This record gives sequence, structure tokens and C-alpha cells, in this order.
Amino acid sequence: VRQLARDRKISTFTAAEVYNTLVATGTLEARPGLGYFVPVTHERIRNELRLPEFPTDALWERRRESHGQQIKVDAGCGWLPADWLFTEGIRRALRTVGRATDVGMGGYGNPYGLSELRRHLASQLQLRGIEAAEDQVVLTHGASQALDLVVRLTLAPGDTAIVEDPGYPPFLEMLRARGVKMLAVPRIESGPDTDKLAQLLRHRRAKLMFTNSSFHNPTGTTTRPAVAYRLLELANRHNFRIVEDDIFADFASRPEPTLASLDNLQRVIYISSLSKTISPELRMGYLVGSLAVTQKLAHTKVVTSLASGELIEHVVLQILTDGHYRRHLEKLRRRLAETQVKVSHALEANGVELDFKPQSGMFLWGKLPSREPVGKLWRLALNAGILLAPGELFRPDAKATPYWRFNVAHCDDTRVHKFLGTLRR
Amino acid sequence: VRQLARDRKISTFTAAEVYNTLVATGTLEARPGLGYFVPVTHERIRNELRLPEFPTDALWERRRESHGQQIKVDAGCGWLPADWLFTEGIRRALRTVGRATDVGMGGYGNPYGLSELRRHLASQLQLRGIEAAEDQVVLTHGASQALDLVVRLTLAPGDTAIVEDPGYPPFLEMLRARGVKMLAVPRIESGPDTDKLAQLLRHRRAKLMFTNSSFHNPTGTTTRPAVAYRLLELANRHNFRIVEDDIFADFASRPEPTLASLDNLQRVIYISSLSKTISPELRMGYLVGSLAVTQKLAHTKVVTSLASGELIEHVVLQILTDGHYRRHLEKLRRRLAETQVKVSHALEANGVELDFKPQSGMFLWGKLPSREPVGKLWRLALNAGILLAPGELFRPDAKATPYWRFNVAHCDDTRVHKFLGTLRR
Repeated sequence: VRQLARDRKISTFTAAEVYNTLVATGTLEARPGLGYFVPVTHERIRNELRLPEFPTDALWERRRESHGQQIKVDAGCGWLPADWLFTEGIRRALRTVGRATDVGMGGYGNPYGLSELRRHLASQLQLRGIEAAEDQVVLTHGASQALDLVVRLTLAPGDTAIVEDPGYPPFLEMLRARGVKMLAVPRIESGPDTDKLAQLLRHRRAKLMFTNSSFHNPTGTTTRPAVAYRLLELANRHNFRIVEDDIFADFASRPEPTLASLDNLQRVIYISSLSKTISPELRMGYLVGSLAVTQKLAHTKVVTSLASGELIEHVVLQILTDGHYRRHLEKLRRRLAETQVKVSHALEANGVELDFKPQSGMFLWGKLPSREPVGKLWRLALNAGILLAPGELFRPDAKATPYWRFNVAHCDDTRVHKFLGTLRR
Repeated sequence: VRQLARDRKISTFTAAEVYNTLVATGTLEARPGLGYFVPVTHERIRNELRLPEFPTDALWERRRESHGQQIKVDAGCGWLPADWLFTEGIRRALRTVGRATDVGMGGYGNPYGLSELRRHLASQLQLRGIEAAEDQVVLTHGASQALDLVVRLTLAPGDTAIVEDPGYPPFLEMLRARGVKMLAVPRIESGPDTDKLAQLLRHRRAKLMFTNSSFHNPTGTTTRPAVAYRLLELANRHNFRIVEDDIFADFASRPEPTLASLDNLQRVIYISSLSKTISPELRMGYLVGSLAVTQKLAHTKVVTSLASGELIEHVVLQILTDGHYRRHLEKLRRRLAETQVKVSHALEANGVELDFKPQSGMFLWGKLPSREPVGKLWRLALNAGILLAPGELFRPDAKATPYWRFNVAHCDDTRVHKFLGTLRR
């Protein structure tokens, strides 16, 4: 303050006022007894972050910030654009719950989650062939918390889990963080490669298998009933549990039989979510298992998070019982199936090689029309405002691969095709 | 169906209709190809549960269900009655957010949590003497998730953590689940007993200390500044981190200096929540630490839960910036302080021995006017419709103690005092 007063030939009172104003607007920070400092800004934090070239899927938002590049097309992301989701239904539900006076707002509620919502989900699960009582359903903070609870409960450091290659990055990251060994089984058109799995299990033991049934992330494939049956056979013979992550199930008008429906929730813990059809912002997922398993998982849930929050549970129940939800779902399914076909044609026309042709779902898995190194292609795309998802993010061993994940809802965009065209030339 | 038709002399068509109606009302379940079954009801699940006599604090809701006893007064619980909370503010905020069209409902948002809300919280933290930049604040699914993230990041199985005796049950349970050893320091009027802690640290090493600063759960005591300073000295000398759980801070009109404010978030990770003054149903907590620490904790948050959910974050921001929130807070503080005095007098008049006389906060810690075994007293109270919290739930070693936790907001009830009167006689 004194120096500023001297330099600018103003009174110290005025100089102090200048500093106060700069503090009030956030330009400076006052540290009592120390003086005024330029706050640690985003810019500086960014420079300190030294992020790896491709952080895991889940870190994209962060990466987006950290690179300071403007993303015009989030071509490989794991969610639908906001205008595909049921945002109007969410808003209507917020207003309805906001007018209700009988929604309890004290206490932590039932540790399993709101009974009415669990009953509703149990009745909806029948459409997927799954028979579950109310207490076989535990609500979670997104499917992520469900996965996390299962990992904690069933896997200790040093244990082995079977995962798909390619598979879901945050789950792979959870296993790495817990020191769990991974046994990778290739994902093929019909589901996990059971021949390969049978071979692997001759020499290795595993405690648990994680698999994505419908519209698999990232390949878009759906497990065929015969493969599901074979997986259960292997699980019985080699005595491992199966975690069936079926968060994309609602994209199908007539879902395939699930592992959970075949095995009647004996060995299978079934996980699903409302993030993909309503909105990821709800953070509402659920897990379904035998009574013995859900009791233990609910206990772990209580210890680590007390409850999932009845307020948002009431909002979700309101959304699901809203007469417009079914219509939204039908429209979403139609749009997604149409966009799959349209975008896979467009990608192929631009030289992308696709191994699988899913009938619906968000994802396509293919090779770009260029054999330049992955990092170079990724940066080229980023310079064109397009965020691509390199396949190595999805691999248990993180090894290089020429494959990329495409999100069809975001890739229905001329900028993507224009970029692919330049790659080809 | 055929048997019913024969027995009742009705057509099989009518009998089938009877079954359909019973299925529609949930009385029966249809299992395709197998027949009709009585669903697995709560009653039957309850009988299978075989819960321990006193499950941990966090399991109370469950215990309440499982014992089938009607609870009239939740005399020892950890939350305020719904009519003490800001339920009208929540409803208003839901309606406001429900009318807003600019609230993004796609994607997972910023992994640290909604920027505007973190900035608002950072500005509010200044009132508690804590200077933190936006990215030093990470939003969590209640304070529970914050604790869980810290435990995962900082403690490995076999490590030692310093805890308070008595202390917060779910945290003790988290440590047990992770295989962390506990070093228990007695909680006295002025805060954790630093003489005792200094003594313990002569022979044992610890990686982290967990302490509840304001209106400690379960004793109601608040750490004095000199004790806070001494704790930081010990932490520096013996090189351990401190997790300061300050979820009751907003109950004080003029908060005491926090550990975090004294140490400027160097060794301290500060945790707080909006559960206690707005509603536990929001599941909105936050942690504050150095940039290096929050970056790692945010990464762990992303891997295990992707995001905290911008929808509820928008609702919370709306509540906090609602002009009525400050008035609600002032009213709540006045009411709580008055009820503390009133209830501590009433309990003492009925023979309860209290070691501490907090000026506010929810809790009182005292001995009942009877030396009957704890289990017997607990059941006597339950028979009178009163759920008491036995002190052993709050002890790191779970050893018997004649102390109980009382929640003053719930104990301002003639039924409690009548019951205590019968104990005395």
C-alpha cells in the first residue's frame, strides 16, 4: 500500500482503497499479516496440473478445462447431449416436488433408498426379466457408487477380477486403485469372448467378473443370450461372481435376457442407472442382488455415505411416474437407433473402419482413416475443436490400439465428417 | 388357478382374474412358467436380518424398521426434526430451479462441483477465518463422502489414525473396514485431551487425526483456540495430518477459530456440510484443503462417483442465496441455544448427570439416573417409544460406558422426562 501511494503519488488511504477494491473483485487476495497476493488462478493451477496426455474417460471435463482448448464437438464422450435427455421432465418434477408438503425433509431416510422408488424400479425390472423384491434393490449415487460398493465388498488387494478389453475406464481405475489384478477377456460381437475366457480360467482364478451387457461401452455390442448362458456356466464352474452393468438397457425397446434374469440374482449383482435416459446430473443409480448381498452392500453404503438422499429420490420417482416419461423413452430409442445407422454410414463413408454395427446405443468403435500416431491424431482433432476418445483409455493394460470410441449422438455433426475428410486426404 | 376354480366353484377365467388382481395390488407375484407366489415381504426380510443389539449410529433408521417398535421420540439421533430445518427454502429452490431454463442438465459437470457454489462456499468460509480459492473446495455427497475420500487417499490398511473417544461412529466404522488402527484420545471440555495425546505420541506414530471442532458429536463440546493451537503443534512435531470435521459450525453465531484457519490449510483438511442447517436429504457436503490435496481428492471422487450432480448443486446454491436463509439460520441458532439450556436443566432435574454444558449444538452427553445394565435401560426406553443412543456406539473400542448421547431438539419432549422420572423411581 505504501509503495503504491509513493509510486502513484496518492495518499495511503486511497492506495488502501484501491487494494480493497481489487480484493472485493477477486483480483487480489488479502492474507492478514502478510499482505496482498495475486490469487492462485485457474491459469496457474492448470500449469501445475501436468495431466497425462489422455486422462481416463471420467476426467474429460477436467481435461477440457485444463487444455484451454475450445471443444465444439465432444465426439467420444459417454453421455447424450442435453436436448436428447428428459430435461423438461426434470424441471416439471422439481416444481411438483417443490409444491408438495408431504415430502419429508428430515433425517436420512431408509438406507436402501426411498421405498416407493425401489418398488417402482422393481416393477420396471420385470420388463427386463428380473424378479426382485423391494429390499433386493439398493439406490446409489449413480451407477458409480454401486460399482464402488461392490468392489469394496467383494475384492481385496491382490484379488483377481475378470474385465472386458476394451471396457469401462473408471471401473478399471477403481480396480487399479484397490490393487486388484485384472484378467482381460476380449470383447467380441456376441459379448465377452467365452472361449478365450475358458482358456484363461484353466490357469488363473478370479473372484469376480465385470461385464457390460447391452450396448457395451465402448464397442456398442450386446451380449447374446447363448453367451450369457455360457458365462454363467463358467462362473458356476470356476466360482466367481458376475457384476452385470446394464446402464444402457433402456435404450432397447425389447431388451435381451440379462445375466441377472437367467441366474435369478444368485451369482449376479445387477447394476443400472437413470443417467442415460433422464440425465447424468441426477446421480441416481441402483444395484440389485440377493437379499444377503444387498444387505451387506446397504451396510457399506450407510457407513460410507449414510444415504442417497430422499429429496432427489422423490424427484426421480416423480419423473418416472410422469405420463410423459414413456413417450420420451420411445422417442429417445427411435432417435438413437436412427442416428446409429446414419452415423455409422457417414463414418464409413469417411473411411472409418467399424468392426461392429450395433442396432442402437450411443457407441461405435472404429479405426480412423489414418495411421498417424494416436497422440498426433488426437491433437489434430482437438485443433479442429473435436474431442476424440482414444481406445487405449478403455484397455485394462492401457496399451496402444488404433481404435477410437465414437458417440453417435455427438458425431451426427458435419464438423466431424469434415475433419475425417481432411484426415483421409 | 385351476384349484381355486374347483375350490370356489368359479370359472378358471374368473379365478385367473382373481390372481391378476392380486398381482396388480402387489399381494402376489407372478413368476412366468412357475406360478404365483407370496412376495418376499419386509416381515420375512426383517426376520432374516438378525441385527446386533445396537447397530452403529448410521444404522438407526434400519434398526428402527427392524425392531418393529414404534418410535415416538428419537431422543439420541444425529439430526434435527424436519420443522427445525429449511424445508420451505428447499421447496422454493426446487420450484425456482424447475422454472430455470439455463440450468444445464447434460454431462457430469465439473468434477470439483459447480463453480458458482464453490465460490459461494469459499466466500462464506471467510466468516470462519478460512481463506480458500475456488479449487481448494471440492463438493461431496454429504460430509460422509468427504470423509471416505480422505480415508481412501491418506490411510492404508495397517496405518494408525488418532480418533476421539467418544467420537463419530460412521468414521470409526470406516477405519475398521479399512483395517486402520486407532489411537483414542479422550474428549474433554476444552477439546481433545492434548496432554494425553502428547503422551500417546511418545510411543506410537499416527498418520492422521480426526477431530470434530464445534459442538462435537457426541459430547457437545467445542475445541478452544489454545487446544487447537496445541494440536497443530503436535501435528507438526509428529508429522500427521488433521481432518477437521466442522459440520456443526453454522450453529454458532460467532464461530471459534478453526484448525484450518490457524494452519491455513497446510496440514488440515477441513470438512463441512449443509445437512445440519438446511437438510440431511440434500446430501451436500464439501472438503477444503491445499490445492495439491484437493486435486488428488477430486481425482478419487471422479473415479468413484464421477460427479456430485449439478442439479442438486444448483438447488443448494439457490437456497444459500435465498434472502430467507440468513433469517432461518439466525432463528435456528437462537432456538438451538435456548433448547440446549432448557433441556439440560430438565434432564438434570430428572437425575441425568451431565459433565459438559455446551452453549449450543444438538448434543448432550450424560449418565442416566439408574445403574441398570445399558441393554436393559435401552429396551425399557424402547418400550416407552423412546430411542436412546448408548455411549458405547461412540467409542473406538466399543467398550461399555454409562454415558448416553441426547439430542436436545428431540428431548424437548415430556415423554422423555416422564420416562426418566420412572427410571429414578
